[in-house]
Amino acid sequence: MTQTTRAPINRAESAHTREWLARFQRVRSASEALCAPLETEDYMVQSMPDISPPKWHLAHVSWFFEAFILTPYLKDYQTPDPAYDFLFNSYYETHGTPFPRHLRGTISRPTVAGVYQFRAHIDQEMERLLSAPPLEHLDEIIDRLEIGLHHEQQHQELLVMDIKHILSCNPLHPVYRDDVRQRLLARGEQVSAVQPLAVQNSYVHSSGDNEPRWHRFAAGVRQIGADYPTQSAFDHDGEGFVFDSETPRHRQYVAEFELADRPVTNAEFIEFIEEGGYSRTELWLSDGWSTIHDTGWQAPEYWEKVDGRWHTMSLGGLVPVDPDAPVCHVSFYEADAYARWAGARLPTEAEWETAAVDQSVQGHFVEDGVFQPLGAADTQDQGPQQMFGDVWEWTGSAFLPYPGFTPLEGSLGEYNGKFMSGQMVLRGGCCATPGNHVRASYRNFFPPQARWAFSGIRLARDV
Amino acid sequence: MTQTTRAPINRAESAHTREWLARFQRVRSASEALCAPLETEDYMVQSMPDISPPKWHLAHVSWFFEAFILTPYLKDYQTPDPAYDFLFNSYYETHGTPFPRHLRGTISRPTVAGVYQFRAHIDQEMERLLSAPPLEHLDEIIDRLEIGLHHEQQHQELLVMDIKHILSCNPLHPVYRDDVRQRLLARGEQVSAVQPLAVQNSYVHSSGDNEPRWHRFAAGVRQIGADYPTQSAFDHDGEGFVFDSETPRHRQYVAEFELADRPVTNAEFIEFIEEGGYSRTELWLSDGWSTIHDTGWQAPEYWEKVDGRWHTMSLGGLVPVDPDAPVCHVSFYEADAYARWAGARLPTEAEWETAAVDQSVQGHFVEDGVFQPLGAADTQDQGPQQMFGDVWEWTGSAFLPYPGFTPLEGSLGEYNGKFMSGQMVLRGGCCATPGNHVRASYRNFFPPQARWAFSGIRLARDV
Amino acid sequence: MTQTTRAPINRAESAHTREWLARFQRVRSASEALCAPLETEDYMVQSMPDISPPKWHLAHVSWFFEAFILTPYLKDYQTPDPAYDFLFNSYYETHGTPFPRHLRGTISRPTVAGVYQFRAHIDQEMERLLSAPPLEHLDEIIDRLEIGLHHEQQHQELLVMDIKHILSCNPLHPVYRDDVRQRLLARGEQVSAVQPLAVQNSYVHSSGDNEPRWHRFAAGVRQIGADYPTQSAFDHDGEGFVFDSETPRHRQYVAEFELADRPVTNAEFIEFIEEGGYSRTELWLSDGWSTIHDTGWQAPEYWEKVDGRWHTMSLGGLVPVDPDAPVCHVSFYEADAYARWAGARLPTEAEWETAAVDQSVQGHFVEDGVFQPLGAADTQDQGPQQMFGDVWEWTGSAFLPYPGFTPLEGSLGEYNGKFMSGQMVLRGGCCATPGNHVRASYRNFFPPQARWAFSGIRLARDV
Amino acid sequence: MTQTTRAPINRAESAHTREWLARFQRVRSASEALCAPLETEDYMVQSMPDISPPKWHLAHVSWFFEAFILTPYLKDYQTPDPAYDFLFNSYYETHGTPFPRHLRGTISRPTVAGVYQFRAHIDQEMERLLSAPPLEHLDEIIDRLEIGLHHEQQHQELLVMDIKHILSCNPLHPVYRDDVRQRLLARGEQVSAVQPLAVQNSYVHSSGDNEPRWHRFAAGVRQIGADYPTQSAFDHDGEGFVFDSETPRHRQYVAEFELADRPVTNAEFIEFIEEGGYSRTELWLSDGWSTIHDTGWQAPEYWEKVDGRWHTMSLGGLVPVDPDAPVCHVSFYEADAYARWAGARLPTEAEWETAAVDQSVQGHFVEDGVFQPLGAADTQDQGPQQMFGDVWEWTGSAFLPYPGFTPLEGSLGEYNGKFMSGQMVLRGGCCATPGNHVRASYRNFFPPQARWAFSGIRLARDV
Repeated sequence: MTQTTRAPINRAESAHTREWLARFQRVRSASEALCAPLETEDYMVQSMPDISPPKWHLAHVSWFFEAFILTPYLKDYQTPDPAYDFLFNSYYETHGTPFPRHLRGTISRPTVAGVYQFRAHIDQEMERLLSAPPLEHLDEIIDRLEIGLHHEQQHQELLVMDIKHILSCNPLHPVYRDDVRQRLLARGEQVSAVQPLAVQNSYVHSSGDNEPRWHRFAAGVRQIGADYPTQSAFDHDGEGFVFDSETPRHRQYVAEFELADRPVTNAEFIEFIEEGGYSRTELWLSDGWSTIHDTGWQAPEYWEKVDGRWHTMSLGGLVPVDPDAPVCHVSFYEADAYARWAGARLPTEAEWETAAVDQSVQGHFVEDGVFQPLGAADTQDQGPQQMFGDVWEWTGSAFLPYPGFTPLEGSLGEYNGKFMSGQMVLRGGCCATPGNHVRASYRNFFPPQARWAFSGIRLARDV
Repeated sequence: MTQTTRAPINRAESAHTREWLARFQRVRSASEALCAPLETEDYMVQSMPDISPPKWHLAHVSWFFEAFILTPYLKDYQTPDPAYDFLFNSYYETHGTPFPRHLRGTISRPTVAGVYQFRAHIDQEMERLLSAPPLEHLDEIIDRLEIGLHHEQQHQELLVMDIKHILSCNPLHPVYRDDVRQRLLARGEQVSAVQPLAVQNSYVHSSGDNEPRWHRFAAGVRQIGADYPTQSAFDHDGEGFVFDSETPRHRQYVAEFELADRPVTNAEFIEFIEEGGYSRTELWLSDGWSTIHDTGWQAPEYWEKVDGRWHTMSLGGLVPVDPDAPVCHVSFYEADAYARWAGARLPTEAEWETAAVDQSVQGHFVEDGVFQPLGAADTQDQGPQQMFGDVWEWTGSAFLPYPGFTPLEGSLGEYNGKFMSGQMVLRGGCCATPGNHVRASYRNFFPPQARWAFSGIRLARDV
Repeated sequence: MTQTTRAPINRAESAHTREWLARFQRVRSASEALCAPLETEDYMVQSMPDISPPKWHLAHVSWFFEAFILTPYLKDYQTPDPAYDFLFNSYYETHGTPFPRHLRGTISRPTVAGVYQFRAHIDQEMERLLSAPPLEHLDEIIDRLEIGLHHEQQHQELLVMDIKHILSCNPLHPVYRDDVRQRLLARGEQVSAVQPLAVQNSYVHSSGDNEPRWHRFAAGVRQIGADYPTQSAFDHDGEGFVFDSETPRHRQYVAEFELADRPVTNAEFIEFIEEGGYSRTELWLSDGWSTIHDTGWQAPEYWEKVDGRWHTMSLGGLVPVDPDAPVCHVSFYEADAYARWAGARLPTEAEWETAAVDQSVQGHFVEDGVFQPLGAADTQDQGPQQMFGDVWEWTGSAFLPYPGFTPLEGSLGEYNGKFMSGQMVLRGGCCATPGNHVRASYRNFFPPQARWAFSGIRLARDV
Repeated sequence: MTQTTRAPINRAESAHTREWLARFQRVRSASEALCAPLETEDYMVQSMPDISPPKWHLAHVSWFFEAFILTPYLKDYQTPDPAYDFLFNSYYETHGTPFPRHLRGTISRPTVAGVYQFRAHIDQEMERLLSAPPLEHLDEIIDRLEIGLHHEQQHQELLVMDIKHILSCNPLHPVYRDDVRQRLLARGEQVSAVQPLAVQNSYVHSSGDNEPRWHRFAAGVRQIGADYPTQSAFDHDGEGFVFDSETPRHRQYVAEFELADRPVTNAEFIEFIEEGGYSRTELWLSDGWSTIHDTGWQAPEYWEKVDGRWHTMSLGGLVPVDPDAPVCHVSFYEADAYARWAGARLPTEAEWETAAVDQSVQGHFVEDGVFQPLGAADTQDQGPQQMFGDVWEWTGSAFLPYPGFTPLEGSLGEYNGKFMSGQMVLRGGCCATPGNHVRASYRNFFPPQARWAFSGIRLARDV
């Protein structure tokens, strides 16, 4: 995999392979830490076709290192089982025919223990490789290693999303981590303490104070996206890494616009529900209207009413909906309908990036161990808040190639480019994203009907 | 649950509850023994909607005792979790709304260990109940206990069928029990030793010696089915137990017919395949023709060609097809088409029962631990062989109520009667059936397209 | 097509070909008379996959004479278009691949006028053939002609059923024939005149007088079915014709049973609805329960409530439901559930035939031009009434081959035998059946969920 | 319907209503002229859910004038049938619940004659209205009239597309107009006359002369889209009309790019086929790869091989594929895969508009009566050819709102905005488009898998 559009980096000189190995180990451990609270049985579940069993995630990210690094570059590398190449490939059609995605939940062997052995094997062999790398391929190895680590971080977020869905399918409302539950319940009590009950139930704005504030951005030709880093900017912390879909950095004319200072809250979304948002056809895109008709959606994913009050499944089990937290697990269709109801619209991804590009990447990420978006402190007029973390923010932009986009060559070229159809862009990361995995130019994407991501809403409007 | 059509039996007098408890424990242990070779992960798989995860089977048969015996009759009975009544109910709609069948594979909690705890709890409480049964309900308790044990035995067979399907979905071809594999492979070598290779591959009949022999049965009014046993005939070995669908014993006029002395073999079915059986429309029922068009079937379930020779997945993994063994895992449509191709037909269930009624229940059952049908020794002119065990034999009869049939009252009345639509009757038991569970009047049933049962073919013809 | 089981008939000697031609012309005219009230557009509609456009029916029955008589037996026969053999074949797979059934409504050419030209061509060529038939094939020609005429009569009934469905899909409630509407409305007024309004709306039995009377039939071995007629019994009126599925005449033991003297009425079925019949799971077969869940059925096909009163689409448009008329357009599942609710069951086809065999074929048929079942006059104790005509009566018997059944050879053997799977038998004909087309041994069949036939319910019970 | 973003136009002063009436009559006549070659039966067919029966199109465009002009503005207006408002509404959910789209082919009444009566009624009443319009509403009436006429012109194109599909479903290959057939066949003979047969069959480029020429466009901020016309620019010829989706005119930065001088030809696309384009996964978007797997596409819609040579259904029946004509009836997925195979990409809609904005609207349109795209004369270096007419050109842009887009108010706001999800933009019009209906800013859109539009490919590339 040589990248024609990227400047060559002589990593051998930098002799940073020790640091790369350490980073590799950190990322690998983080995946296993996320699965530590699971029972063996949880690892097996594919609760809908989009979901993969946690076991599969753990094996697939390991397969990536085997297929793209160990097999081509490590002398005498032996796979534990040649069939893994078939079982744990995902969508890399040019690498061979993957096992059918919707049947992943039917594969009981290798067992969970076997998958962990596979991981240990990969870890050990990667250590062997990085301890004495073939210098003539070091650049390629590090390139692929870096992609492999970001790939595994993407799957860490998918693991959290999928585990939430898997446990939520169970009418017993199982709890992923008890400390998460305690924290969420404690937060709920704080809310109860400061709000009279009537307010809690209706979630009516008590005053205009709760309205979002709008920040205005001037018109102009903006630089959007990112280029592959040059050598000097590059280091082993992944500073400067970008996916191909974020490239190249290019110009876009962005007209004057305003952006809300915070995501839409649960209280606001409940108001939308209570005012009949789900039954007013004029608020919905045609496909969205069909979707809510076919699915019967009347509230965000995971919500259910208990004794007249909205609750939601979380990784701490069933908890009351926090009115001040950003609404989450809504589809693009719901985000778009909400925005129309509110007399606003979703931002384009260029607008979002314009607002985010000068901000530091701060917010609630997976490392915070809350696994649920939280409400922001009121920060007055300090500009848009919570651009990063908590909830992915649906944009009004389709996931399409940037002008001048060139996919990576070979199988890795399937990484993003082949999904550039039928998907919408989300920006900013969420409470399940590793904090060092996201950046202003990062483009996440889901089909417009997807709801199992931690997806929320930020409003924009024309001036 | 009082049965109006059944004579009351005062079991209290018989004081056989100790023996009933022992029988209960034998059946319960047998279920767990069948699951002993499984990995935890195997217990979770629902490889198609008709399949249930083994974990579910183990819990569901226990739920039966809880719902129909412990809850109504054991004072102070406490369930480990009230949600189990919802999760492990199957189709007893009058008992409540069951959890959707096709989603059983998504339920990771209770874990497998939790299900075994549930079983232990049921076993302990049943022991408590049977140690000091409420005499005024003893008849009902024993009635239900007996049904519950036969119900669990039915699920033992389903466990074997489902485990076979679960492991067969895995391209790694996992082996259920290594001793089964050794036995099947050894048998294959014997076959190889006595047959030249060419014969093995083409499976052509070398001579007319292989043709089935036909046994003729005279016309007449026959007694078909069974009545509920009277008190004197009844004992704790289940002698005389029948399901409601086998009742009442009634008259049918059966015209003269002939029945083959053995099931159709794999060698014969391969001949059907090689002569284009799957592509000759005139051999097929209209629904069968649509089915093979939609599914692409070209051979029995689990067959695949390896190096030009037919192999089949078994509970010993992938093994060569044994030409002398009865063909297995064919649908009713394939059985019917085969019979038409052979110039014969399937027997009616009355014909089958006429031939079987005087035979002893002998054959290969689950206790034999082969889990695969075996060829019979050539027994010359001793009458139809292998009527019991090895393979269930498709009949040409739809599963419908017998004249005078009255279903059990209450929820247990859902047991068989509600499935009397769209299904065909199979007779005789198979290599996955507990030997003491089957009898001449036993009516098994599956939809005509089902193939994951151990279902085979016996031919009949008019005179 | 030689039939091995049928005695040869030297029709040449009988010199009845003129009479056969006349009969041919009568049947052909009757088909066209049924379509006379249609608009060209009506001929095109396929309102569900089971329905065929009337245009297709008219062409298909003509194709039958072309494919099985004219092409093989008429020297120099020229088809108007060779593609018709593909377009208008139905399910005779051995004759070639039929055009996909569910797409019949997409074929606008040949036009309706073109189809009538095709019919005229066939009529003319059949006249040419029968005017100077090749004597050496006369028996075969007459055999096939007779089947062809019964085949066309079957399609006459299908035409009525399908036209009803086609017009009923239209929210404008179009009327097929205005005289039918006048007659049905007049009948409704008579009902109104003699019943107080309260009774009309609730349809409660005012007294036990309305209860069906039960007729008892003794146990014994019965002769069921029919044999192909011998030469002497045969004549050109079709006396003695039977379909292969009715053969051979054979013995069945029929236990003592009772049969209701009339079909279930609309008033009775409304009582079933009002007492929650559609929501009581214990009344339904498992497949039936799924079906009403999936479809949302809460009443027979074509019923809708207008101002609190049940109405039904008819060939006279939307009319009030006549409480005294037999209930119609119910599925087998609904018939079965109704019977269970009423403490009875459906008769087997042998029971039905036992009761019908000595009755003359009298009732409301298509010739009566009502196209809707009518209530019978109260005939006191004269035995079962309305066994023929008005509504087909669901039996509890699956459509399976009789003992000794041999299908016709060649393509005509596909006529009935290949549908002997997944269907239930109905008996007796209906208001859309040609009166000389039905007889006591006639076996109609539909899948258990079908409702667009004029299918009703007669109860039976054990003694 | 007041449009807040549009300048008020006092049309009363302009007294142009007579001209508007004349234009109304021209457009209405054109619709009927397109249907003149149809048989009554053709008007009924819905050959797939996306298709509407021609009868429905003719009624629906008339309903638009009734619902949005006659009912609100014509005193004493009487509808011929109130049910038409339900039957012939399409997707205007806010106007009421439309009749289910996929069932349009089941509605035989009103008949075709009835629909023409409805049209005559609308025409007459529109004439009555426009002869003496209520001056206080004249602006609104003319606004809506103009939209209604463009709406009817859109349906004229849909009529051609749908008629082509309807006739193509018929294995008889019916011809829409014989003169079209003669013209296409004559053209084919010309091609045959100048090309040796071997070249015809393989369609190999004989030399680089056939390669498209590339035109380069400089980078810069461009004005894209259109504003609603101001009063002075407006006249009754529709000059200046735009749909809401084309507004507002806004700035976009367009980087330097090159555009091919002509659409991709059939010869070039056959080369793609012959080089395995349909089986090379790396050329396809993930959704595209699934689509060709599910559908089995191996060539454009309507193509079939006859005696080794590609033919295509046309409105002149089955004709040989013209190698020099633009390829047509390809999906977005095929267009995208072809572009990748050719080392190029599809243009964005901004790029396309940049190239088209200064060109006059010339090309083959529906008025030319060819109904099939034709090859362009070689025009050397005169800039991009055939930007208008012949084939719609897929762009790489999703159909999304322009910055500052505001949909029309009320039901008409459903016109375009609600489809801004899941669709791709096409530009330039085709051989089925009325020539005065298209313009450089016109945005057509279809789902990426649609093929029944006259959709082709023009390549672009980065510099």
